[in-house]
Amino acid sequence: MRAYKDLSREELLALKAELEKSYEEEKAKGLKLDMSRGKPSAEQLDLSMGMMDVLTSGSDLMCEQGVDCRNYGILDGIVEAKRLLSDMMEVPMDNIIIYGNSSLNVMFDAVSRCMTHGVLGMTPWCKLDKVKFLCPVPGYDRHFAITEYFGIEMVNVPMTPTGPDMDLVEKLVAEDDSVKGIWCVPKYSNPQGISYSDETVRRFAALKPAAKDFRIFWDNAYGIHHLYDDDQDELVEILEACREAGNPDMVYKFSSTSKITFPGSGVAAIAASDANLKEIRRQMTIQTIGHDKVNQLRHARFFKDINGMREHMRKHAAIMRPKFEAVTDQLEKELTGLEIGSWTKPKGGYFISFEAMEGCAKAIVAKCKEAGMVMTGAGATFPYGIDPKDSNIRIAPTYPTLDEMKEAAKLFVLCVKLVSVEKLLAQ
Amino acid sequence: MRAYKDLSREELLALKAELEKSYEEEKAKGLKLDMSRGKPSAEQLDLSMGMMDVLTSGSDLMCEQGVDCRNYGILDGIVEAKRLLSDMMEVPMDNIIIYGNSSLNVMFDAVSRCMTHGVLGMTPWCKLDKVKFLCPVPGYDRHFAITEYFGIEMVNVPMTPTGPDMDLVEKLVAEDDSVKGIWCVPKYSNPQGISYSDETVRRFAALKPAAKDFRIFWDNAYGIHHLYDDDQDELVEILEACREAGNPDMVYKFSSTSKITFPGSGVAAIAASDANLKEIRRQMTIQTIGHDKVNQLRHARFFKDINGMREHMRKHAAIMRPKFEAVTDQLEKELTGLEIGSWTKPKGGYFISFEAMEGCAKAIVAKCKEAGMVMTGAGATFPYGIDPKDSNIRIAPTYPTLDEMKEAAKLFVLCVKLVSVEKLLAQ
Repeated sequence: MRAYKDLSREELLALKAELEKSYEEEKAKGLKLDMSRGKPSAEQLDLSMGMMDVLTSGSDLMCEQGVDCRNYGILDGIVEAKRLLSDMMEVPMDNIIIYGNSSLNVMFDAVSRCMTHGVLGMTPWCKLDKVKFLCPVPGYDRHFAITEYFGIEMVNVPMTPTGPDMDLVEKLVAEDDSVKGIWCVPKYSNPQGISYSDETVRRFAALKPAAKDFRIFWDNAYGIHHLYDDDQDELVEILEACREAGNPDMVYKFSSTSKITFPGSGVAAIAASDANLKEIRRQMTIQTIGHDKVNQLRHARFFKDINGMREHMRKHAAIMRPKFEAVTDQLEKELTGLEIGSWTKPKGGYFISFEAMEGCAKAIVAKCKEAGMVMTGAGATFPYGIDPKDSNIRIAPTYPTLDEMKEAAKLFVLCVKLVSVEKLLAQ
Repeated sequence: MRAYKDLSREELLALKAELEKSYEEEKAKGLKLDMSRGKPSAEQLDLSMGMMDVLTSGSDLMCEQGVDCRNYGILDGIVEAKRLLSDMMEVPMDNIIIYGNSSLNVMFDAVSRCMTHGVLGMTPWCKLDKVKFLCPVPGYDRHFAITEYFGIEMVNVPMTPTGPDMDLVEKLVAEDDSVKGIWCVPKYSNPQGISYSDETVRRFAALKPAAKDFRIFWDNAYGIHHLYDDDQDELVEILEACREAGNPDMVYKFSSTSKITFPGSGVAAIAASDANLKEIRRQMTIQTIGHDKVNQLRHARFFKDINGMREHMRKHAAIMRPKFEAVTDQLEKELTGLEIGSWTKPKGGYFISFEAMEGCAKAIVAKCKEAGMVMTGAGATFPYGIDPKDSNIRIAPTYPTLDEMKEAAKLFVLCVKLVSVEKLLAQ
């Protein structure tokens, strides 16, 4: 395969005509594909239907603490749920609080609490002239939406194959006390599927922030969401690393079962140091009488323990893996050597990240849409929706069926080729 | 019965000796009663156990909109839940947003949003030097805890048999633009069980606040929580009244199914004007991908419609009514004419309010505790936990069994008598 950039103008024009013909054929198929969000497929959701039978009218709904899960009581989670989620999050049971159905909500509340009440007795962020967050890019649009909503200035930090550019992170947090936080998806990152190296995690734990109220927002969304049985990423555990580095309070770790059981009907949690949890409980005591303990019990009894959950995740992987491979195989087969894009090949998580030629991402996504395939908007993986190079595209392969995904991958590479040719011709 | 105040010192001393003897006998019984919170009894919770069988692994979990309730999607509630809760809250379906499991959480989030983002484009409350809330007293301690947590100054407004003292409310909101809100439990109020009269509601709707961002926090916690079939309070609907009075945006109305199905595992909602809901949805879009739709569906299918819910509430009433009457009967029988206290006789809700002689509430609650009966702390029904007269006591008759409640009522009147005698002797 010759790289497109080495083709003559005539060759490019001929190629363009050919690609346009294929594109019109694709368009004529009238596809209707949704690859916009990281949603599990119906087949994956079916895996958890047994959860609907765990609790019946004949069930004893007492939790181990002897509290009736149907009534008020127990602010921060029943023991059964704490045990399960602490195993899942690789933290001690005492360092976890069980929340409601959404870890995004927990993160929102955490930022909101910092805004109105500050961190461990320090000035509330809403009283400061300027608050900044570091945002590894590309990253998760909903993280960036939270910080934007609260008027927090976002500073891009490039991702590398081992995690965020730590030289830059260390420099920015050390020299600017308005830098109060950083968004991280440390394992199978959104959208690249990158897992932070041991060195990256250690450097995070050893940060020396100018702001004493700096916090790492560690969104462990894909902690056990492996695609392969025999090739899994393992991370250094951040709470322990922070404690060892003398920074026990520097991190909030978030997770949920949203992509394990049912999105929207799962159980979320936060893990942090004793001092942080004490402050969080103070907020929770005011905010709620307690979260849904019946659903906590349902989850705990369904999985029994972390082994049950890991077994369950293998079934998810069996459904997801062929879809991921349908995309990466197609990209490899069709784009290798053309020098019009690069992509990641994740071992877990929910996304594949595609890096198009500069200035091509928006056009590719638009072309896909025109042919009936909705993707995450180009730019969404950057703060304020602005990808400075207009090159990153997030591919979410889980929701469509495998056959649809194969169709989608074909259409996608076609659009990449066509837009790239047009770009080269316009230069 | 002669009033205690008319008894001679000798008579009081003799009475005291007699009461002390009875009290020691009660104490010797080693009672263990919890009347501290408005918790449904186990028998009440059993009424909803059928809800555990509504959804099974064989169920179709599509909602009417054709969305799979197991997956992400639908931010503000499935149609089935909107229909049910809008009937329950007596508002149009379009003026409702379905939340998670806790209306307290919805109220907390509403205040928090006003703090960080202001109301409809106005200055965020956290940027103001002073924010005040009017607090009808006695009232709900968890309301006051929210405003205290956010540093909002609370101003007591006395309750009357028809609702808050509206002359004072009108005056305070009209003359002070730092007054930004008022907490209301308009129907079967906490703790008095008072329902606002039509005139009170109309005067609320017609308020002319100095602050354009003044909001009524209308906690419709006991909207269908009647004790009697044939004697129920009906309120003028506040959203409609506000609209008619030209103040469509002035109210947030809250409710939940916490005391209808399972506390902590119910469904909460907010009702408000289009403009308010638009602003709330903007926050929600950032805060969450959506609340627990499976639980929404479970509730909707369990009740079918508002008639199913009303029928269900009759069963609650049948359990609660004798307990309420056990208390009020005992109060009437034992305290009438003694002039050492007055009480309410609610037709719904979760509480009975007792007004002791000035300076006696704390001592009565302490005496009860000494004999094994935990009540809501005296003072809890006032902002900052300070009852200026130390006279209000909240009685929560639902959680104990009927037999326990009869015991509890006996013990309570005994403690009231004893403390009152001691008070009179000390004067």
